[in-house]
Amino acid sequence: MSYELTPRTEAGVKFVAAAESVVEPLRARADEADRAGTMNRQNFTDMLAVGVTTAFLPEALGGFGLTSIHDWMAGMTRLGRGDGSAAITMNMHLAVSRGLVIGYQRALASGNKPVASGIEAQLRQIASGEMYICATATEPGTDNLHPFTEATRTDDGWEINGLKIFVTGSPIATHLAMNLRMPGAADDGGDLIGSVMLPLDTPGIEPQDDWDAMGMRASGSQAVKFNNVKVPAPMVRPMGPWGVWSTAVLMNRNVANMPLLGVFLGIAEHAHELALTAASKQAKKGKPRNADRPGIQHTMGEMEIALATAQAMLAQTGRYADEFMATHQGDALTLEAGHELLKNHQSMKWVVNRNAIAIVDQAMSVAGGGAFMAGHPLSRLYRDVRAGPFMQPYSPTEAREYIGKIALGIYPED
Amino acid sequence: MSYELTPRTEAGVKFVAAAESVVEPLRARADEADRAGTMNRQNFTDMLAVGVTTAFLPEALGGFGLTSIHDWMAGMTRLGRGDGSAAITMNMHLAVSRGLVIGYQRALASGNKPVASGIEAQLRQIASGEMYICATATEPGTDNLHPFTEATRTDDGWEINGLKIFVTGSPIATHLAMNLRMPGAADDGGDLIGSVMLPLDTPGIEPQDDWDAMGMRASGSQAVKFNNVKVPAPMVRPMGPWGVWSTAVLMNRNVANMPLLGVFLGIAEHAHELALTAASKQAKKGKPRNADRPGIQHTMGEMEIALATAQAMLAQTGRYADEFMATHQGDALTLEAGHELLKNHQSMKWVVNRNAIAIVDQAMSVAGGGAFMAGHPLSRLYRDVRAGPFMQPYSPTEAREYIGKIALGIYPED
Amino acid sequence: MSYELTPRTEAGVKFVAAAESVVEPLRARADEADRAGTMNRQNFTDMLAVGVTTAFLPEALGGFGLTSIHDWMAGMTRLGRGDGSAAITMNMHLAVSRGLVIGYQRALASGNKPVASGIEAQLRQIASGEMYICATATEPGTDNLHPFTEATRTDDGWEINGLKIFVTGSPIATHLAMNLRMPGAADDGGDLIGSVMLPLDTPGIEPQDDWDAMGMRASGSQAVKFNNVKVPAPMVRPMGPWGVWSTAVLMNRNVANMPLLGVFLGIAEHAHELALTAASKQAKKGKPRNADRPGIQHTMGEMEIALATAQAMLAQTGRYADEFMATHQGDALTLEAGHELLKNHQSMKWVVNRNAIAIVDQAMSVAGGGAFMAGHPLSRLYRDVRAGPFMQPYSPTEAREYIGKIALGIYPED
Amino acid sequence: MSYELTPRTEAGVKFVAAAESVVEPLRARADEADRAGTMNRQNFTDMLAVGVTTAFLPEALGGFGLTSIHDWMAGMTRLGRGDGSAAITMNMHLAVSRGLVIGYQRALASGNKPVASGIEAQLRQIASGEMYICATATEPGTDNLHPFTEATRTDDGWEINGLKIFVTGSPIATHLAMNLRMPGAADDGGDLIGSVMLPLDTPGIEPQDDWDAMGMRASGSQAVKFNNVKVPAPMVRPMGPWGVWSTAVLMNRNVANMPLLGVFLGIAEHAHELALTAASKQAKKGKPRNADRPGIQHTMGEMEIALATAQAMLAQTGRYADEFMATHQGDALTLEAGHELLKNHQSMKWVVNRNAIAIVDQAMSVAGGGAFMAGHPLSRLYRDVRAGPFMQPYSPTEAREYIGKIALGIYPED
Repeated sequence: MSYELTPRTEAGVKFVAAAESVVEPLRARADEADRAGTMNRQNFTDMLAVGVTTAFLPEALGGFGLTSIHDWMAGMTRLGRGDGSAAITMNMHLAVSRGLVIGYQRALASGNKPVASGIEAQLRQIASGEMYICATATEPGTDNLHPFTEATRTDDGWEINGLKIFVTGSPIATHLAMNLRMPGAADDGGDLIGSVMLPLDTPGIEPQDDWDAMGMRASGSQAVKFNNVKVPAPMVRPMGPWGVWSTAVLMNRNVANMPLLGVFLGIAEHAHELALTAASKQAKKGKPRNADRPGIQHTMGEMEIALATAQAMLAQTGRYADEFMATHQGDALTLEAGHELLKNHQSMKWVVNRNAIAIVDQAMSVAGGGAFMAGHPLSRLYRDVRAGPFMQPYSPTEAREYIGKIALGIYPED
Repeated sequence: MSYELTPRTEAGVKFVAAAESVVEPLRARADEADRAGTMNRQNFTDMLAVGVTTAFLPEALGGFGLTSIHDWMAGMTRLGRGDGSAAITMNMHLAVSRGLVIGYQRALASGNKPVASGIEAQLRQIASGEMYICATATEPGTDNLHPFTEATRTDDGWEINGLKIFVTGSPIATHLAMNLRMPGAADDGGDLIGSVMLPLDTPGIEPQDDWDAMGMRASGSQAVKFNNVKVPAPMVRPMGPWGVWSTAVLMNRNVANMPLLGVFLGIAEHAHELALTAASKQAKKGKPRNADRPGIQHTMGEMEIALATAQAMLAQTGRYADEFMATHQGDALTLEAGHELLKNHQSMKWVVNRNAIAIVDQAMSVAGGGAFMAGHPLSRLYRDVRAGPFMQPYSPTEAREYIGKIALGIYPED
Repeated sequence: MSYELTPRTEAGVKFVAAAESVVEPLRARADEADRAGTMNRQNFTDMLAVGVTTAFLPEALGGFGLTSIHDWMAGMTRLGRGDGSAAITMNMHLAVSRGLVIGYQRALASGNKPVASGIEAQLRQIASGEMYICATATEPGTDNLHPFTEATRTDDGWEINGLKIFVTGSPIATHLAMNLRMPGAADDGGDLIGSVMLPLDTPGIEPQDDWDAMGMRASGSQAVKFNNVKVPAPMVRPMGPWGVWSTAVLMNRNVANMPLLGVFLGIAEHAHELALTAASKQAKKGKPRNADRPGIQHTMGEMEIALATAQAMLAQTGRYADEFMATHQGDALTLEAGHELLKNHQSMKWVVNRNAIAIVDQAMSVAGGGAFMAGHPLSRLYRDVRAGPFMQPYSPTEAREYIGKIALGIYPED
Repeated sequence: MSYELTPRTEAGVKFVAAAESVVEPLRARADEADRAGTMNRQNFTDMLAVGVTTAFLPEALGGFGLTSIHDWMAGMTRLGRGDGSAAITMNMHLAVSRGLVIGYQRALASGNKPVASGIEAQLRQIASGEMYICATATEPGTDNLHPFTEATRTDDGWEINGLKIFVTGSPIATHLAMNLRMPGAADDGGDLIGSVMLPLDTPGIEPQDDWDAMGMRASGSQAVKFNNVKVPAPMVRPMGPWGVWSTAVLMNRNVANMPLLGVFLGIAEHAHELALTAASKQAKKGKPRNADRPGIQHTMGEMEIALATAQAMLAQTGRYADEFMATHQGDALTLEAGHELLKNHQSMKWVVNRNAIAIVDQAMSVAGGGAFMAGHPLSRLYRDVRAGPFMQPYSPTEAREYIGKIALGIYPED
């Protein structure tokens, strides 16, 4: 697979190697977890053991010191080759842990010791496996710029009420990070979007155990209710005005979700592998090897083109994102720049998802009728890979309009 | 749905009306049957009651006297809108019963009373519901021109040994029709392809109860073993030389399988309906109706085009097939003509399957994340509709080469 | 070409046979006319001689009495196989002559002799070749619901000023039919859309001789200026309010433009023919025949599928239109019904144009580098076929939204 | 255009800047050259003046010292934005001059002064503009592994006879590089493929002045006959056995042709630019700006996705090729490795050509009917961009089979 993503940084090399080392164990457990519709805890023990879980942590705290978005994506492709459900769960944990590390480094840089040591304690919990984070920004009937889950002030903190859905990983996570609405919290009395990370055993948090989907069945993406959940004041942090794009919200959307596409590419890479294996067999008694049939060759050629396309697009976006992060700090990070990144992210998402779905479909055709059986890995991949277009942001019904508008210089703020 | 198939004949009007009358009951039972992975017997009781099961029978024997392939397809779209699993099962029964009726009419026309009354008895059993037929021409590792299930001569008949797979409907059928190999049965000592229809309770027939697939889970498409199954001599009928196209085998492939595509179109029509319903809802709190969003309008426009394409293609093929049947009797039915029909059938299959799969996919995007849940009908349709390309003949890895060769005047016989 | 359109009516059989008889002469002149960028008058002499030009005229007046839209389309495919430029020109003449015939028959039926004999005179001119009509509804910077060419009242008639573009056929036509704006002509003082047919030698009509396009170069689609053109009062006929859909305008758009797609299909059918010929040759010295190479077979298979799709879609739309015309007379012709027809027409246009363009492209690949030379017919077809999406209504940038809205029950009038 | 190719090396930065500086002058002359079907000599004077022509020359000899394939591609996109005809011509000159530079550096490194000074003289001619090279490997009815143009031994050299076609740039080039057959020249008496570069004014070289194509009309891609052309012995250099892949031939195919795709991407980038300009205009009187119409936004979104895809694919292939060149020297350059590169090159070619053609098509739809006129740049781009799939190797009818076979481990040598 000549276009496959290869790491660009030292830390990335370690991360990708770690991810590769768990592909086989993840695969071995995937069918059972899918059938049962439950998360497999051993996957996460394994990923902790090899360093996947702690990839963003500084080396001093036991991590790889990963910083490259491109290499994060590269690692996600490997996890996706193992098990899509486990991989998307891990992606959310990595996104939040990356944010913690950035906060930690800022606190260190600015000499804010109390904050630094507070975060350091969390990072050590991640390193030990005591902290495993899930995250969500999804609620029924709204988008993630308009969360309806609310944090209202109490005397000594906040009280949270609401409902989040698609809380991937929540059955085994210890902590949950999410966005919410802070009514009247702005200086001008308007509402803010805030974020919070809180232990999942906080009283009032009620997981719904309702995840029963067509695919990604082992991702534990249940709903979680918040029923008068009380949290101390500093835990809820404002991000920007509610219902309005801010650079913080924009970058959050971009960075946490872009590497998810690596998972869907990884699923396609797995399917491609299965197709190559199937093609090398003799298809029918007394007939030539599948690989020697022109129809199989043409289909494999098309699959190769689709795979190369998705890989090139993801890799190029990763490089672009790395460069973007390096050059868009502080004032350089305008809303226009953020939308440019999101537009490119969405073009990539479109291309990766379309091609990944097509590749799994083509692999099924190459593998033949057996691939339609519930016990065949391709039938699971076919169901899993369709989750891609549902990932936030945007739906296929929204993406082209958003991309087109940004390309035409029409911004949602205007 | 302006391009939807509407019946061309009196009998077709009755058949389509009957099929439409069971859409709702079939739908109501589809989810449970899918979850359980078992056939729902009540579907077949209902289809018998309204006349679907007996559509090809002469009116004198209680049928509609259906003859049009186009109208058969039209009816299959309606059943497909109800439940794909039930519909593909019914299609096989209809294909075999149609063959019985043709044999019956030939026997009557030629004054062969014993044969006519023999078949008439069977038709009466179909009319009463005592006979319900499943059919298969599929075996592992070979195509349906080269069956390996064998009928060997015994003193007073035949003994059948072998294995058939994808025997759709077999858990509730009373009879099984299939092709097989008759070693040494040709005048020149070569092998023949033969066909047989035998009661499923014949000793030695061993259903494997192994149907556990990604989709079409309620179609009972288990494997069936034949272990020294003894049948009387006249029941095994030669069709032509083994491993070689004959017009009989060619027409069998064409006629039995063409209307199957109506089922996959029907699944897409159901998905289109669900998308229209979803689009008419308010998507997000405080936002406009889904139908008023340009992205939804564009997606619905694309779905409309895809649906019109599949419908027009199926309808035109049905008309073409009707005309073909009328004009290609006896000597007019050459191998070249049969391949021309099969080529067109395959073009239609390609277009219908591609568009049907795309429509269900687009409907999922229109309906949003809820459509990915196991309990949502679209997630079942997504799994069911993917069965289309696996239907015989040809695989997507074979179809273009076959179509191209026939278009270029290169025949498999040459 | 099993899906090719075959006539359904007696008159259609004659019309299609007439069109077929001129394919070879039209082809023989196409390259020279394309190079020169001028219309070939002999094409029209030939089409008159065989009866193409007079197809819609009653048999009593020397025509075929054509009525079927489907068969009109079928004939257009044949002309398109000959020369796209000549074919689109003829289509406009046929559309207007059809309108005259309908007016004639209405006048006869209602006993309005003066009108009937007036039209009859025109029909006799068509039959003799003295009248050849071009038509346009296109102006720069507006759509055909909002014409800016104006007819203002004078004492004894109207004075027309304005500019029409894409007036296909005008260099050799004797008469021009077009829409225009009638300011203040409505009872309520509002503007109307009107139509007029006037001799091209009327003073003040100034053809611009400016047609120099990439394709359809022999169609004479120049601009025509109207500079104080005076016409008698009865010649300008009101059709409905300006800027608003009326059933008259809707049906005009539908009926005149639908058969145009037959031309683009015909171009694709010609390309397909050229590809078959090219494939039957030996491609490279010492190598197998092109037709025996799997890559050619796959490409021909794909071309066959594309061709079948476009043919089936056009044919089904033609049948649908015939039925629509039969059942939507008088009050049955609502705006909703008209939009339903236009929606289906647009789905068909999308599918036919996309596939026709793809087929010519594939044919070029099959024919190899020689097809890129200016002297090769495929290079002309490649340029001509791209005119399809520009035909009114709608642009590819508008069609999906229109189709989607109508499918969702959202009408432009609302 | 966030995915546009940006140079990775110092020399590349200079090359791309030089190429960008001639975009406007090339554009200004493109229409006239296209109409006339002749090369514009001023384009080449300009490209010499800014350093494009000498990009591969060492800095000591007045070049940029360009080495990166990726950056070569990046520069070709800029030239393609100017004029496709001029750009493909320049690409051939660059490919041959690059080969000369490599030979020069090898001669210097190995201390072979006579060879080094011989090549140095040529490079100085290139620097002064006295030498401008065209190249071809194309003949009618064969592929470039089986040239039929022959070099036969004479007493003091070779005599060349044969015919080459598509000799892009030959009307203004001073030298011609090409492959040929050397009958009996192998040690075992077999034939070899050789290469030769010879002055175009050598007696017996007969340009045919026959280039009259649909597109790339200003590229001078005429045929050239060789009629007893006598050349000194050292000028014909053997590359490997005739009719058989050798690494030399494989790499030649790869390196010379890969950057050509940059030109076709550049044409698409130009079309995209024209579409953006068109979209910012008011489309119709009294209607909103084009850019504010949802249909335009969707189309621009799709164009953006297509453009990003082609750009990412070309860029990734360029990076991959750079790495390949660095790591595949000497024994590391196996036939398998060469085919892997060619397979990836072909996947990229497929994706770039398909998307480039689609982008020009979409741009036409956005720009409206005016874009179909001969004087509109989009109508030229539409004709030019279709040349892409005809470029060697492979045809769209061959590419998928080749890619599929290599992916399956089936090599043409086996």
